[in-house]
Amino acid sequence: MTQMEPTISWVLDRAALINADGESTIDIGTGERRTWAETKERVDGLASGLLGLDLEPGSRVGVLMLNSARHLELWFGVPGAGMVLNDLNFRLAAEELRFICDDSQVRVLFVDETFLLVARQLLDACELLDQLVWTGVGTQAPEGTIAYETLLAGPARELPVATSDDLAAIFYTGGTTGLPKGAMLTHRNITANALHMVVCAQITHADRYLHAAPQFHLADGAMTFSTSWAGGSHVFIPAFDPSATVSALASEKVTLTLLVPTMITMTLASGELDDVDLDAMRLLIYGASPMPAAVQRQAFEGFGCGMAQAYGMTEASPVVTWLDEETHARGAAGEEPFANRLRSAGAPIIGVRAEVRRSDGSPAPTGEAGEIYIQGPNIMAGYWNRPEETAAALVDGWYRSGDVAYADSAGYLFVVDRAKDMIISGGENIYTSEVENAVYTHPAVAEAAVFGIPSEEWGETVHAEVVVKPGAELTNDELIAHCRDLIAGYKLPRSVAIRSEDDALPKSGAGKILKRDLRAPYWDGHDRSVG
Amino acid sequence: MTQMEPTISWVLDRAALINADGESTIDIGTGERRTWAETKERVDGLASGLLGLDLEPGSRVGVLMLNSARHLELWFGVPGAGMVLNDLNFRLAAEELRFICDDSQVRVLFVDETFLLVARQLLDACELLDQLVWTGVGTQAPEGTIAYETLLAGPARELPVATSDDLAAIFYTGGTTGLPKGAMLTHRNITANALHMVVCAQITHADRYLHAAPQFHLADGAMTFSTSWAGGSHVFIPAFDPSATVSALASEKVTLTLLVPTMITMTLASGELDDVDLDAMRLLIYGASPMPAAVQRQAFEGFGCGMAQAYGMTEASPVVTWLDEETHARGAAGEEPFANRLRSAGAPIIGVRAEVRRSDGSPAPTGEAGEIYIQGPNIMAGYWNRPEETAAALVDGWYRSGDVAYADSAGYLFVVDRAKDMIISGGENIYTSEVENAVYTHPAVAEAAVFGIPSEEWGETVHAEVVVKPGAELTNDELIAHCRDLIAGYKLPRSVAIRSEDDALPKSGAGKILKRDLRAPYWDGHDRSVG
Repeated sequence: MTQMEPTISWVLDRAALINADGESTIDIGTGERRTWAETKERVDGLASGLLGLDLEPGSRVGVLMLNSARHLELWFGVPGAGMVLNDLNFRLAAEELRFICDDSQVRVLFVDETFLLVARQLLDACELLDQLVWTGVGTQAPEGTIAYETLLAGPARELPVATSDDLAAIFYTGGTTGLPKGAMLTHRNITANALHMVVCAQITHADRYLHAAPQFHLADGAMTFSTSWAGGSHVFIPAFDPSATVSALASEKVTLTLLVPTMITMTLASGELDDVDLDAMRLLIYGASPMPAAVQRQAFEGFGCGMAQAYGMTEASPVVTWLDEETHARGAAGEEPFANRLRSAGAPIIGVRAEVRRSDGSPAPTGEAGEIYIQGPNIMAGYWNRPEETAAALVDGWYRSGDVAYADSAGYLFVVDRAKDMIISGGENIYTSEVENAVYTHPAVAEAAVFGIPSEEWGETVHAEVVVKPGAELTNDELIAHCRDLIAGYKLPRSVAIRSEDDALPKSGAGKILKRDLRAPYWDGHDRSVG
Repeated sequence: MTQMEPTISWVLDRAALINADGESTIDIGTGERRTWAETKERVDGLASGLLGLDLEPGSRVGVLMLNSARHLELWFGVPGAGMVLNDLNFRLAAEELRFICDDSQVRVLFVDETFLLVARQLLDACELLDQLVWTGVGTQAPEGTIAYETLLAGPARELPVATSDDLAAIFYTGGTTGLPKGAMLTHRNITANALHMVVCAQITHADRYLHAAPQFHLADGAMTFSTSWAGGSHVFIPAFDPSATVSALASEKVTLTLLVPTMITMTLASGELDDVDLDAMRLLIYGASPMPAAVQRQAFEGFGCGMAQAYGMTEASPVVTWLDEETHARGAAGEEPFANRLRSAGAPIIGVRAEVRRSDGSPAPTGEAGEIYIQGPNIMAGYWNRPEETAAALVDGWYRSGDVAYADSAGYLFVVDRAKDMIISGGENIYTSEVENAVYTHPAVAEAAVFGIPSEEWGETVHAEVVVKPGAELTNDELIAHCRDLIAGYKLPRSVAIRSEDDALPKSGAGKILKRDLRAPYWDGHDRSVG
């Protein structure tokens, strides 16, 4: 019955059927506006163009681009040609990108003006990569590249019909240790998540979604399919900044967007929200991490719309749990159990199951922390070319997330730590977020990251990296004394590195602090088995 | 990856997780009110009880009941025990029920007080059926039956874990050959439709759905899963009547229900809506057939809520297209293209594809009538034990519906005819060949054609044109009395035109009776979009 199952082509076909004359893409970077009928024609042209290159079914197609309408076309056109999308995180170093392109066997790379230089380096360095497609406007492509618009204008070809189990994309997950690995997502995985999101966010053809977070990141990229399947519209800014974001929200009457907490904080601090009318906005989704209650309240007022949190990971295509608008609205008013649940990542979305388990695999009772196991049609097929890591992650029909949480009686997950970030010191499990929460309560602390460093005696000991606020002063002893009142003695930092305000902690594209970079110098030459 | 796919158990588990203390079922017939935690416990008890009977995985479990909370429990408990639900249309004649029970191999039959007599007849007549479970309140079961509550209270057993491809239910649908055939629906079929409906009807945990249409009919029954998956509540009246329906809508603050157009007409005519407050109602879904524009307007005013139409069939679990609230609201105000689309059955819902094709299988252009082909994860696995009919219905990954429609440019389907000559009277599908088979068994009948004629109250009623044999005599009453022993009351001709032997029915060159010509004078001046 596989042929009865949806593929990514169904998503575009439906948008182009029910909303042919409606706006598909509004690209603020290039000024181009298109209808769904036009986008469907362009995507078919792109897929035909791909079939005309020296590629096979299943060939990996790389993308290294800022946000744009063409970027969206690739998310439909590559799977539509029976090939596999590998959208690259442009914040990675050239050597990391080379590793990923070689590992996934990228044959052709779509690149915009911004990343042309690094794309040329990759063309030289990567084994199978031998074609660059330049995705700028017009047909005047830089030397040695094919113009995207030329590729689209080529002869029409018969497009393959995918099955739902075919691979549609490989997304590399940073992982806190080791080499990046490619999560293989099928048409079924991606369309399942899209449908789940249409339910959660109640997306309709009247919605207008702003791509402000980077499209290469699945949190934003997956909204391509949910918004399109409902027949809605897409607005693009090349990259997030507070002014461009607020301006796009207002001028394009955006109804829906997804931002990471850091972006929300920056937007609130920018003052850009003060003088604009965001009446059309109905839902601000935030992902990647929960937000402190104070920021939630400010965002609720600043954006003046409903709020929801999505929690997930690449391996889940990506959404697992959802903290809904009602919880945000009633929780902000102090009503229980909503107020307490604002600290959670939400409850399992429709179509997905999540269980908290003890280390022996048995279910953890309500309130007891354990590893989050996940089950659903959105769970990846495995890691590309990593049979051992796949076998460790996909166990008896469940995906082991590695994240640690406890659940309340209604299934709301309170994520206490990434299992990979858990410190085991003297046989005690220490969840770093708990220590960080304590550190953050000190008034002089601007930013903090806690992780384990090697110790002969304890296996690991707790270490904190702390950035102080402008003008503030802080000593190690002061901070530890402050924490002593808040957490158990064995959880206290044994060492602290105080950083000045100019020495911010390293962050990922999603604004997440990169503990792995902070940790690396301490672990050089040591073997750390967990994580 | 089958194990990652949802089954019917996921639906109940989620409701019992996210809304454990919320109301699951409010049974107005018995006065019982339960929470989702209680319903989950009862359903697990029912499944354990079924495993304790002399049954195997995949055994067919029959149900012959009015609407009730216990009826809903069976829709979860039978598939939850790894068995197959066969919910019987209680309007069928005893002989029809016997055929269906034998054909599907029913082993145990759940029956309420209303149908105990016919159930006993079936117990005698049916080959494999050897147990009756009485679904009344309490444990005092009539002689020769097991009490439902006793079955539930038995020892807990380990429940099987279904896969999504397992059969969950067999629903019988009239066949063109006259014999009903069983559409086999898998867990995947049923959960796919449920998710599609959650999207269409934007169902949430705050919804309260009224089961007023018969639960045995998939149009109502399938709402069991969509409403539950969202965590909503169910209200039951034993059977539709205008007073009970309006009273339940008002007293239980129902937000959502599905009625067939005849029920809506009867409710409007009853005057029951005049003095009640239905402020909670947000959406009235109607199915089975379109409604005349005048009735749509009256319903819009009378119920004072949004309206939507669902079109589908048993083989599609059942929903294929959806005519949304916006179309009803703006169409009622005369705005195009909405006003014109009110005559349609709506556009394909998310997750389902529908195409209109010519008889050679090629796509029909916009506006040209052809057969509706359907594709989606909701399409049945086939007809039980009917390889030929299955092969004719499931072709190259598409389901051939037999319905004839044209599509507008946005994919809205305007159903112009039923290839199978089906009559829809009061929301019931009546296959003309079945009625003709009965008519032809009368010794005086030489030729007969059965078709629907317009009716204010029923949409259509069954009409028979009969040519008598030379020298034979026949009256209308005689013919109807003859048919009464063979087919259900609702299928009986309401009017008969007896023709002499000199007045043969009009025929095509190939000798096929031209029903269109016979039908035309009756439908002159009527807007008949389905039939």
